Amino acid sequence: MSDKYQQLRELFGEIFDLKAAANVLEWDQQIYMPPGGGSVRAMQLATLLRLAHVKLVSDEFGAALEAAEAEVASLDPDCDEVRVVRKVTRDVDKWRKVPSEWVGEFTRITALSQQAWEKARAESDFAQFEPHLNKVVELRKQYAEFFAPYGHPYDPLLDFFEPGMKTTEVKAVFDELRPQQVELVQNIAEHGAPVDDSLLHQPFDEGKQWDFGVEVAKALGYDFESGRQDKAVHPFTIGFGVGDVRITTRFNPNYLGTALFGTMHEAGHAMYGQGVKPTLDRTNLIEGASYGIHESQSRMLENLVGRSRPFWVAFYPRLQKVFPSQLGDVDLETFYRAINKVERSLIRVEADEATYNLHIMLRFEIETALMEGKISVGDLPEIWNSKMEDYLGILPPDDAKGVLQDVHWSCGYIGYFPTYALGNLMASQLWVKIDEDIPNLARQIERGEFGDLLAWLRENIHQHGAKFEPMELLQRVTGSSLSPEPYLHYLRSKYMDIYKLS
Amino acid sequence: MSDKYQQLRELFGEIFDLKAAANVLEWDQQIYMPPGGGSVRAMQLATLLRLAHVKLVSDEFGAALEAAEAEVASLDPDCDEVRVVRKVTRDVDKWRKVPSEWVGEFTRITALSQQAWEKARAESDFAQFEPHLNKVVELRKQYAEFFAPYGHPYDPLLDFFEPGMKTTEVKAVFDELRPQQVELVQNIAEHGAPVDDSLLHQPFDEGKQWDFGVEVAKALGYDFESGRQDKAVHPFTIGFGVGDVRITTRFNPNYLGTALFGTMHEAGHAMYGQGVKPTLDRTNLIEGASYGIHESQSRMLENLVGRSRPFWVAFYPRLQKVFPSQLGDVDLETFYRAINKVERSLIRVEADEATYNLHIMLRFEIETALMEGKISVGDLPEIWNSKMEDYLGILPPDDAKGVLQDVHWSCGYIGYFPTYALGNLMASQLWVKIDEDIPNLARQIERGEFGDLLAWLRENIHQHGAKFEPMELLQRVTGSSLSPEPYLHYLRSKYMDIYKLS
Repeated sequence: MSDKYQQLRELFGEIFDLKAAANVLEWDQQIYMPPGGGSVRAMQLATLLRLAHVKLVSDEFGAALEAAEAEVASLDPDCDEVRVVRKVTRDVDKWRKVPSEWVGEFTRITALSQQAWEKARAESDFAQFEPHLNKVVELRKQYAEFFAPYGHPYDPLLDFFEPGMKTTEVKAVFDELRPQQVELVQNIAEHGAPVDDSLLHQPFDEGKQWDFGVEVAKALGYDFESGRQDKAVHPFTIGFGVGDVRITTRFNPNYLGTALFGTMHEAGHAMYGQGVKPTLDRTNLIEGASYGIHESQSRMLENLVGRSRPFWVAFYPRLQKVFPSQLGDVDLETFYRAINKVERSLIRVEADEATYNLHIMLRFEIETALMEGKISVGDLPEIWNSKMEDYLGILPPDDAKGVLQDVHWSCGYIGYFPTYALGNLMASQLWVKIDEDIPNLARQIERGEFGDLLAWLRENIHQHGAKFEPMELLQRVTGSSLSPEPYLHYLRSKYMDIYKLS
Repeated sequence: MSDKYQQLRELFGEIFDLKAAANVLEWDQQIYMPPGGGSVRAMQLATLLRLAHVKLVSDEFGAALEAAEAEVASLDPDCDEVRVVRKVTRDVDKWRKVPSEWVGEFTRITALSQQAWEKARAESDFAQFEPHLNKVVELRKQYAEFFAPYGHPYDPLLDFFEPGMKTTEVKAVFDELRPQQVELVQNIAEHGAPVDDSLLHQPFDEGKQWDFGVEVAKALGYDFESGRQDKAVHPFTIGFGVGDVRITTRFNPNYLGTALFGTMHEAGHAMYGQGVKPTLDRTNLIEGASYGIHESQSRMLENLVGRSRPFWVAFYPRLQKVFPSQLGDVDLETFYRAINKVERSLIRVEADEATYNLHIMLRFEIETALMEGKISVGDLPEIWNSKMEDYLGILPPDDAKGVLQDVHWSCGYIGYFPTYALGNLMASQLWVKIDEDIPNLARQIERGEFGDLLAWLRENIHQHGAKFEPMELLQRVTGSSLSPEPYLHYLRSKYMDIYKLS
């Protein structure tokens, strides 16, 4: 490629390096940093991301971008060069609306707020987190104002995670999903053949859980030469380049599901990151098309693969060998039904597929109300609990299992949650296509073979990173726009079978 | 403090943040980074340190420095503000001679070179490290030229680690030490009562070694709330701020000394870092006065404390309880003599105090010859082995136990090694003063009490960080300039006793 484009890449490479360094610092902060490191760490993160912003919106960078735009104008509009330039342009346009000082302050406040959340969650005490969250929400409201006029104050936040998506669109999707998911859950509760998942609630040695999780992640295609797994309070995936994408997990010594499905979920994210074309390293395309597309990869691995019958045909005998006293006498079908038990439960990340989106809708309603100024941070525990009763008919025993359960708000990730639901939809939509393209897929999975699946994902999704916008990518791959139908169809047929409903 | 000084601190704070972030990335690189992360990590480090350099030598920073200088000119010359400004001025003067591009390239090359060294050492294959080391030495020669004219091409490198010290001064010190250390070692070999250290060479469970090391580090005063310990190929200490100073260690499952004394050594470094006055955080004073002063702290804890009889009066019963089958029948005196066995050995970091400086002199001769262009990188294995025979009468069986044993050259730390020997000297010199100031120190140590010792170190050394230049600090604290006498006296009396010489 020619000069101007290379110059842009080099300048962007510096910005990438600053952001990747910030990611290393965040990884460390959430996993290994001692308490004494908290306040300077917040300063360090603020400096890195503020400087990255200063560089991105600088005149020097603007000029380089303009020169590169002109240079690539005549190339194939789908080639990497054009798409790199286009994505950089979108980012510059967006970030020029935001002052560098805001970026620094937001970074510092959210770093401290994460540290506070961790402690508040451990002590199940919302009050000590409240002042931090207040600042975060205040900053997010400021952020929305940078993008005024907007259709809805939540739009700029949503756009941050799901470029192009509007609050009204999410509402419309949720309005379509809600009654059907509620009806399904109701139907299961009233007419389903009971499922007993007590076998999952036994003591399981942490070391053995770890080893089995690693084995599964490797089998799925997560490459430990270009990543690693550590323990974290709230599992996450983070990358510093195509060759270093790390996952985290957490353990419940008395419940098998936490680490097992958590690891598959994060491996799904990480394989996306590891699968981006290496020539796109140090560009902003390696981030992934959107958080929704990212969640389609993680939720697909966790659920469409990890909670499927074929998967456990391959892995259940192995799991039984690891935990003979707990599972030796449990047959595959009983295990399969247990891991798919539908239950109105407290913790989103452990929710079954039928109720999962209800957890998301609850958060979406709270977040939009916060941004509209209809509720305030101090009201959150009460509102959370009352919505839990509305949606799921249960009341959290404490804040740790309620409003404090997720790390997202402490990070300023208001607007993220809808992408989980969108990811669920996209995963099912993609799966229909995958199933067409790999006719004997179920047989392969039953043999523990994921090579064709990974190759398909690499070819159609991973390699491109953020080259295509999310809806464009979905359209290119599946031939249709976002639709809840494949997802609802998948849910219904899966649970009708498990719960023997007609 | 007033405006201009605060402005300087804020600007310097950013530079500090960039360097601290680079330290986090280096910590991760040496401990947790997967192989796939290596090449982009080198770019990230290069960007961070190049940007830090660009900021430091910028006109904006120069103007802020000048304004702050004028503002603090009338203050007490020993106050923190004046000293912060003076240290920044020294740094700016030094770094203005070096192009930012060199800083970036040196950082990138040394990051890759460290990764290569780790592999080469594991495979004991100097050849695969040679091209990397060639580049490092080339860059270090360039660096020296930035400071021409110099008395000796090694001077600028030495000054990097030991500000103000000249190659001729180090030579003079070594020329004084060498015959006396050689004579002592000879005397021990020929006339000493034999010491048997086979008790240290037995299987020792790694987990128990870890726990005991942590216990000792805590007792000495290392604060795990402001730090942590991890395993590393080559132990090191690294800090990201006063509240986050981390140590590393490594284990030999068949030799107790590696982790035990390594941990005490690193704790000595880290307690210096943790002890800097918190108001100096995010300034360049938290780095420590020099590497020599730093080594005085680590070598003091490792040797003057950790290899002393009083220390083991306190800790040996505890160690026996941890390893009853290995040490239950070994009395304190036998153990004390074993950990002080004088032996011509291969590995510097495990060398006894009598032979340790010989390892340093060997490296110093090689480094100066490299810088003078009298030898080349390709000659190193042969030269190393021949010097080992000269100095210590033994031949390394392979490069891993010879020329590849230390991480320093791979990091570009040419000029570092002399500071270990200087640190040994300073430690003894300080200890004479400590012994005067805390009359019942030995009794306290026998009871496992280190509070007075730590308070003395905090008051006289740690709190100041790099506020005073190394020789100024030594003079202030001990009332005399650097002298080998206390060290030689310490060595002789210790080993005459242990080896029953007269």
